[in-house]
Amino acid sequence: MKVLFHLDETEKWSMTLANVKNFLHEVPDAHITVVANGPAVKYYTTDAIEADLLAQVDFVACNNALKANTIQPPQINTAVRIVNAGVVEIARKQKEGYAYIRP
Amino acid sequence: MKVLFHLDETEKWSMTLANVKNFLHEVPDAHITVVANGPAVKYYTTDAIEADLLAQVDFVACNNALKANTIQPPQINTAVRIVNAGVVEIARKQKEGYAYIRP
Amino acid sequence: MKVLFHLDETEKWSMTLANVKNFLHEVPDAHITVVANGPAVKYYTTDAIEADLLAQVDFVACNNALKANTIQPPQINTAVRIVNAGVVEIARKQKEGYAYIRP
Repeated sequence: MKVLFHLDETEKWSMTLANVKNFLHEVPDAHITVVANGPAVKYYTTDAIEADLLAQVDFVACNNALKANTIQPPQINTAVRIVNAGVVEIARKQKEGYAYIRP
Repeated sequence: MKVLFHLDETEKWSMTLANVKNFLHEVPDAHITVVANGPAVKYYTTDAIEADLLAQVDFVACNNALKANTIQPPQINTAVRIVNAGVVEIARKQKEGYAYIRP
Repeated sequence: MKVLFHLDETEKWSMTLANVKNFLHEVPDAHITVVANGPAVKYYTTDAIEADLLAQVDFVACNNALKANTIQPPQINTAVRIVNAGVVEIARKQKEGYAYIRP
């Protein structure tokens, strides 16, 4: 199963990470991408995401959002993938058959 | 037409139910599933959803969310279907061709 | 690429329009539809959306939401397309291969 979680609000991180963990608990081999844009990208400057989750899940940051929040790429977790536009990544993943979930 | 509505915030119930009614008004034979996870599952402990809507729509509760909100299955409306993980149900339904709407 | 943005909260307009502009910057020939229902339709009574964006993007208003907010069709921007039920339009577009994004 392939699933993409999308969030742009900082307050949605705890729900999103709980959702991701519940998903992996049920479907351990799921392909999961989390795309953060808007203010939610600020969370990537912390080390709040556990290492084993960073290893299992494709975490993505929108570069437009990083710029809008004056965050330089070296400030975010190195496990996070940066894309030009988060919304384009979301559309692309859906074309590839990923389900979309917006916590 | 097949459509899935998803909500995790309690405040989204009134909008979601209005959306469902509008959908059925336009497309009376639509297959509609409503998946609630997060705090939104608490609404299922009330009898706020009208009987005719419960008969027409597949209402689903996430069991992880029930546990997190210390709700026992017997406390919720018997017409509600319980799944292990709401997010997995959402992904499955999209694979089956359901459109996704997040009010 | 075909993508549909959906919003029902008035506060989501600035994020949605920023998302749309970022999308068009990356994919200038994208087919973009924005469906507003709920209180978000009130924004269409203003002339806040730039003319060049109105020309490039298919902006849609839900007529149920217009009625609920006592807005007459002549009060909204003439470039906006009115549909009976925004949620049905959203489901239809997804069937036509549009990706769904909920800012």
